[in-house]
Amino acid sequence: MGRLGIHSFVWTGGQTQQGLENALEKSAEHGYRTIEFAYLRPELFDLDRLAKKAQSLDVQIGVTMGLPRDKDVSATDAQTVEGGKRMLADAVHAVRDIGGNKLGGILYSAHTKYDRQPTEDGWKNSVEAIAETAEIARAAGVDLVLEVVNRFETNLLNTTAQGLKFLDDTGRDDVRLHLDTFHMNIEEANPAAAIRLAGDRLGYFHIGESNRGYLGDGVIDFDRIFDALLDIDYQRDIVFESFSTAVVDEGLSLACAIWRDTWTENDPLAAHAKGFIEQKMAEAKRRRATNARP
Amino acid sequence: MGRLGIHSFVWTGGQTQQGLENALEKSAEHGYRTIEFAYLRPELFDLDRLAKKAQSLDVQIGVTMGLPRDKDVSATDAQTVEGGKRMLADAVHAVRDIGGNKLGGILYSAHTKYDRQPTEDGWKNSVEAIAETAEIARAAGVDLVLEVVNRFETNLLNTTAQGLKFLDDTGRDDVRLHLDTFHMNIEEANPAAAIRLAGDRLGYFHIGESNRGYLGDGVIDFDRIFDALLDIDYQRDIVFESFSTAVVDEGLSLACAIWRDTWTENDPLAAHAKGFIEQKMAEAKRRRATNARP
Amino acid sequence: MGRLGIHSFVWTGGQTQQGLENALEKSAEHGYRTIEFAYLRPELFDLDRLAKKAQSLDVQIGVTMGLPRDKDVSATDAQTVEGGKRMLADAVHAVRDIGGNKLGGILYSAHTKYDRQPTEDGWKNSVEAIAETAEIARAAGVDLVLEVVNRFETNLLNTTAQGLKFLDDTGRDDVRLHLDTFHMNIEEANPAAAIRLAGDRLGYFHIGESNRGYLGDGVIDFDRIFDALLDIDYQRDIVFESFSTAVVDEGLSLACAIWRDTWTENDPLAAHAKGFIEQKMAEAKRRRATNARP
Amino acid sequence: MGRLGIHSFVWTGGQTQQGLENALEKSAEHGYRTIEFAYLRPELFDLDRLAKKAQSLDVQIGVTMGLPRDKDVSATDAQTVEGGKRMLADAVHAVRDIGGNKLGGILYSAHTKYDRQPTEDGWKNSVEAIAETAEIARAAGVDLVLEVVNRFETNLLNTTAQGLKFLDDTGRDDVRLHLDTFHMNIEEANPAAAIRLAGDRLGYFHIGESNRGYLGDGVIDFDRIFDALLDIDYQRDIVFESFSTAVVDEGLSLACAIWRDTWTENDPLAAHAKGFIEQKMAEAKRRRATNARP
Repeated sequence: MGRLGIHSFVWTGGQTQQGLENALEKSAEHGYRTIEFAYLRPELFDLDRLAKKAQSLDVQIGVTMGLPRDKDVSATDAQTVEGGKRMLADAVHAVRDIGGNKLGGILYSAHTKYDRQPTEDGWKNSVEAIAETAEIARAAGVDLVLEVVNRFETNLLNTTAQGLKFLDDTGRDDVRLHLDTFHMNIEEANPAAAIRLAGDRLGYFHIGESNRGYLGDGVIDFDRIFDALLDIDYQRDIVFESFSTAVVDEGLSLACAIWRDTWTENDPLAAHAKGFIEQKMAEAKRRRATNARP
Repeated sequence: MGRLGIHSFVWTGGQTQQGLENALEKSAEHGYRTIEFAYLRPELFDLDRLAKKAQSLDVQIGVTMGLPRDKDVSATDAQTVEGGKRMLADAVHAVRDIGGNKLGGILYSAHTKYDRQPTEDGWKNSVEAIAETAEIARAAGVDLVLEVVNRFETNLLNTTAQGLKFLDDTGRDDVRLHLDTFHMNIEEANPAAAIRLAGDRLGYFHIGESNRGYLGDGVIDFDRIFDALLDIDYQRDIVFESFSTAVVDEGLSLACAIWRDTWTENDPLAAHAKGFIEQKMAEAKRRRATNARP
Repeated sequence: MGRLGIHSFVWTGGQTQQGLENALEKSAEHGYRTIEFAYLRPELFDLDRLAKKAQSLDVQIGVTMGLPRDKDVSATDAQTVEGGKRMLADAVHAVRDIGGNKLGGILYSAHTKYDRQPTEDGWKNSVEAIAETAEIARAAGVDLVLEVVNRFETNLLNTTAQGLKFLDDTGRDDVRLHLDTFHMNIEEANPAAAIRLAGDRLGYFHIGESNRGYLGDGVIDFDRIFDALLDIDYQRDIVFESFSTAVVDEGLSLACAIWRDTWTENDPLAAHAKGFIEQKMAEAKRRRATNARP
Repeated sequence: MGRLGIHSFVWTGGQTQQGLENALEKSAEHGYRTIEFAYLRPELFDLDRLAKKAQSLDVQIGVTMGLPRDKDVSATDAQTVEGGKRMLADAVHAVRDIGGNKLGGILYSAHTKYDRQPTEDGWKNSVEAIAETAEIARAAGVDLVLEVVNRFETNLLNTTAQGLKFLDDTGRDDVRLHLDTFHMNIEEANPAAAIRLAGDRLGYFHIGESNRGYLGDGVIDFDRIFDALLDIDYQRDIVFESFSTAVVDEGLSLACAIWRDTWTENDPLAAHAKGFIEQKMAEAKRRRATNARP
């Protein structure tokens, strides 16, 4: 695998510069080598200072976001779609300015519990918006990855197969999928097979438990997940994500429906997740070697 | 187990008398002996006729529902709560009038993706509303069961442990939990252990796959689920639930975020589900006997 | 998959012509389209009559065996090895004479709990013996498949990787592996991955539960097994195997250490196994289709 | 749980006093607090010196063994049974003399691949021998635990249910079962349910992987095993067992059919196993707490 990372919301609700800098330090302290930020409005934060801090700590920055409803590129009215495209372009530039390498998340629709079915026109608008954003991202040196999420957080891309179809429709080979075990547990008939289906088009990977709490505190069969990541020789980043009411970004908490404390202390959570992921990966490698050794 | 049933939305969107009568016939034809209806407004349907048809087919009727936002008994304003109580009382009487034995679902809150955290006052209002409804239900000869559902469909009762606490707070021993494998797959740290935790307070059980499609077409470890149902000597009903865009009740489809065709033909789905559940139950019984035989 | 079959020891201890004919009839009655016999000494049975009966019932015959210790081709003394080669040649001809298409099992060593480590010379002798037998088998129109079994039944080929190495060493492309879920459950780090490792070199497949009893009455994760068989597009035969003290071939019972009644009646066992395998295969196909459908 | 231990054969073939002392030191170094020895013939080793070393390191000693065929207490001839009883009595005294607290393993039969079915008379002889040995063990302050093992290593007690029946027949409440995940993976219909069936009569527990190698390098669902140990509030010792050709006691290697190197270096194996068991136990505790928390 590439770098092992952690979502900044384990550390901070993300409202202050100080909170973000602290998150960078905490991530580095725990040995994580990439961090995931939500989209940061450039006018509210000193992006340059964050970029330098990250670089000095050798922590790579990735950014994820979901569009708001009034900037949904899968809408069917032109004004909303245009607003979405502008927001995506701004986000790409903010990622560049913060020294990040990646923009992911629900870039292709709103991050919301929809109250309408998806439409063909909306799909086309979204495909076009992502294709345009990809052009901007290439110029800015930023990778685009589209997060496939569960039905309650988008109505457009709930499965890997849908995501791959969407990628095909963009006609771009520089946009990839962003898969997440929490979402796959709800949507995929066989999550490990979905990872193998994605293959080299998997660009970013989220490890989250089925209840979004401690790894091991749910139903996900992580052994098969790590086996599949080795099957496709996945070399890109793996990022741990967990949400609790203990650390709150209000918007994300509501979008993700976080009503419970699955944990209250973030330090032991972060330490456990790193140990868990590294152990599972080591075991998958050993299992693979054992299986192949005559 | 008790009777094996099926949700009427496998057969019909539920908008017409004819659709519901057809659903009763289809269920009986496939050998199901209970059917689950959504709450039927008495002014729109001939409940008596449905009752007689069900009786003649020896198909038991259960009813489930979720409150609308403007009748949410977990709200904090008195008017909304009162509206919810009246709706619950009406629903109890409709169940009685249709010859049903059970009212279940999200009776304790709205069936919605909340955009606010739950509150203590809301919990108390809900507990009181359910306790009052239980009194009405007892008089009407109807059992109340509260469905524990995933975070995107309520913010109040997402886990069995929360449900049991809620039951305790009502001070009633005649209200039970309604668990559902689809929801447990998202929320419970160990679904089988949650079933054992519920024990005799489990009053109704939904079998649904992780993607709400065909059983076997997802990640749920049904062997452990059926083992646990035997561990607690569960003797009440088990009902199969699956939603597809192929058959649509618009309100429920939106509340449940059904955007995909996981199936298009309901007859083979219903036949498969019955065979699957009966086979899994038979295997669990055999496994239990084998394990215990010296 | 190809034909679905059943081991004759579900029906008979195999000591009499009548028992074998009855086994053919029972297999056909239950809808199995291949049967597995143990090696039948030509001087004791009317092979031609069995061949005709099988043909009239459209039941294909496969034969499996394990070498006795005094004919172990993995031994290091020439006389034992020569005896083994002669026995293998005789077996190939008996398969041809009974109208069978396949010789499988532990052809490369004794079927025994060894009390010595395997040796390099023994490996070479075995490789040579199998290569020679393959030549004879090709001439006779019989396929050779080598069964990889657990450590207590051979000391030579316990894993798929060892089996593949052995095939390579024979220099033949007409010898394949015969894998068995019972044995894989003990030896393989990841049975599904082992099936994918074998790929097109998998020539025959045994479905057996971890305790050799009813399918479902043990720990094997058959969903992943069937997913893997689809991954490699396996089109050859799948045969159900179960042993109980209820039906006894004394030699095989001792070699396989069958001390318990995991079942007493063979008809319901055979009916269940067929239903189980067909359902699991259908579910795996549906899961695969669901996973791939955008 | 009680103490976490390791089998001495991870460290040494056990032929020399120095090897055993080294094993004690290595176990203590790695943080294990109990060690399992095979039966040590008192005339060959300085038991007192081992006892003192163990005490100084605060490492508890347990001893396990299997009877040889010529001292099989489940035999039907009096001389063999008497020889077995004498051996068991000697072993109890050796455990006492080495300062151990426990005698376990296959005390009730030979440790062998049997070539005959078990008999009722043999069962009775074995029950009587264990009852007599229990009396001697009580006087010596040693606990007796009977290891339930797979069909290839005994023909008498292959399942927990058989073991419980055997305990009942002895009429003793001071003899308990010794279960082992490696054996349970072959024999039990549901290993976790078997642990719950044993309940307080479980006296000792072996953690071994399905291929007897690294934990995680096989098919055992350890999450359910640790959940079950918590279900029964297991407070006695848990001991890690793994065999490879890398470290050899010839007799045990042959009895256990160890033909492969599943590892070559024992230090990383021992470190991994301790981390694995502690992590799985911590995760099971957290899962249990999460499941129960309203």
